[in-house]
Amino acid sequence: MYKIVLIRHGESTWNLENRFTGWTDVDLTPTGVSQAMSAGKLLKAEGWDFDLCYTSVLKRAIHTLWYTLDEMDRTWLPVVKDYRLNERHYGALQGLNKADMAKQYGDEQVLVWRRSYDTPPPALEATDPRCERSDRRYPDASAVPLTECLKDTVARVLPAWNDSIAPSIKLGKRVLIAAHGNSIRALIKYLDGISETDIVHLNIPNGIPLVYELDENLKPIRHYYLGDAEAAAAAAAAVASQGKA
Amino acid sequence: MYKIVLIRHGESTWNLENRFTGWTDVDLTPTGVSQAMSAGKLLKAEGWDFDLCYTSVLKRAIHTLWYTLDEMDRTWLPVVKDYRLNERHYGALQGLNKADMAKQYGDEQVLVWRRSYDTPPPALEATDPRCERSDRRYPDASAVPLTECLKDTVARVLPAWNDSIAPSIKLGKRVLIAAHGNSIRALIKYLDGISETDIVHLNIPNGIPLVYELDENLKPIRHYYLGDAEAAAAAAAAVASQGKA
Repeated sequence: MYKIVLIRHGESTWNLENRFTGWTDVDLTPTGVSQAMSAGKLLKAEGWDFDLCYTSVLKRAIHTLWYTLDEMDRTWLPVVKDYRLNERHYGALQGLNKADMAKQYGDEQVLVWRRSYDTPPPALEATDPRCERSDRRYPDASAVPLTECLKDTVARVLPAWNDSIAPSIKLGKRVLIAAHGNSIRALIKYLDGISETDIVHLNIPNGIPLVYELDENLKPIRHYYLGDAEAAAAAAAAVASQGKA
Repeated sequence: MYKIVLIRHGESTWNLENRFTGWTDVDLTPTGVSQAMSAGKLLKAEGWDFDLCYTSVLKRAIHTLWYTLDEMDRTWLPVVKDYRLNERHYGALQGLNKADMAKQYGDEQVLVWRRSYDTPPPALEATDPRCERSDRRYPDASAVPLTECLKDTVARVLPAWNDSIAPSIKLGKRVLIAAHGNSIRALIKYLDGISETDIVHLNIPNGIPLVYELDENLKPIRHYYLGDAEAAAAAAAAVASQGKA
């Protein structure tokens, strides 16, 4: 049996401003830093340890991992930064306020953009200054979407799982993944076989370690948040309500 | 032609307390953090950029790299943490005060311990609680010395250069190395073909980027500190005087 720990990054500046973030590389707020440090303290206090860490190439996830590792005195652990663990790309909505969009287009439309499994938000133009295609952290332009629905994110995250993360787990590495709301949802949808309908209702709170216990075929046995379960549930509910006018 | 940048970590708590540090995993002081941030600001202001970073498995070097990358907005760069880039192991002197040792054993003896090429300090007992052999960041006990002279450090650092760093440079990767006074001295001794006698007088200041320009065979063409050359020289002189009573 294997155990992995998933952590969504701590609160980011655009979480705080209630803006669609996607691949925009915004940093943690002081609250986000504190959440990341708390995650590390909790993992350490409960005796968790790791051999290998994965994160995205976005600083809110990288910094979350760094603060977590600092608290665990594990800065020396190897870290793989994989762009395939990035947040879902939010297309032309990146940078826009969720509540403003809800006022303009209605709560329903925003919920579709936020949670529809296969309807992506409007695409970014490749010439838009917000487009990341010239950002050299990505291997090539084809790796950089102009928008994504969760289905697209699943298609991007799964190769990272299959090619890199899963083989490491099977080698006996204790894996910690610091990533994003939707890259974690994508992974959980796959692991738990959640339907396209039900995944809409899954929300991941910021900065709370989520343990998945896996059998020898990496099928989930059970999962649970570390720390205060009620606080984790309340934080997830808060995430769900972000897109309302 | 290739360019690499070497940075000795910023001031550590034991630099400040004038204690022999070696493989003891002490952190940066606020001054050390500031030095690392200054290094990053300087590299960014002068237009330096990198593709691949190397550091040791000691947090004063890792944190120096992290602060440098933060200032350059390059947290996403891949980082290889290699224990072979660790500081020289200081044996039974680890934790002891340099000036106290100079009072007790004389400036000359401390200079021998600090700078002799082939005389190591007294060895740590394998049963000493300071011994790192049970620390799982190292592959096995044979990788963990009980003491080292600089010659030993050269023998440890060179395989990291030959197996890992040099091939990356030849692939065209722009390499940044955040390491330690003696692992950097070991590397420079090799690169510049400095004699065992002359290497005694080479001192590396904390937190100042040191550029090496290399030809197609990775032989140095020239090297220079970034920023204020006089400040770098003064900082190197201060390092040289640390072991005096």
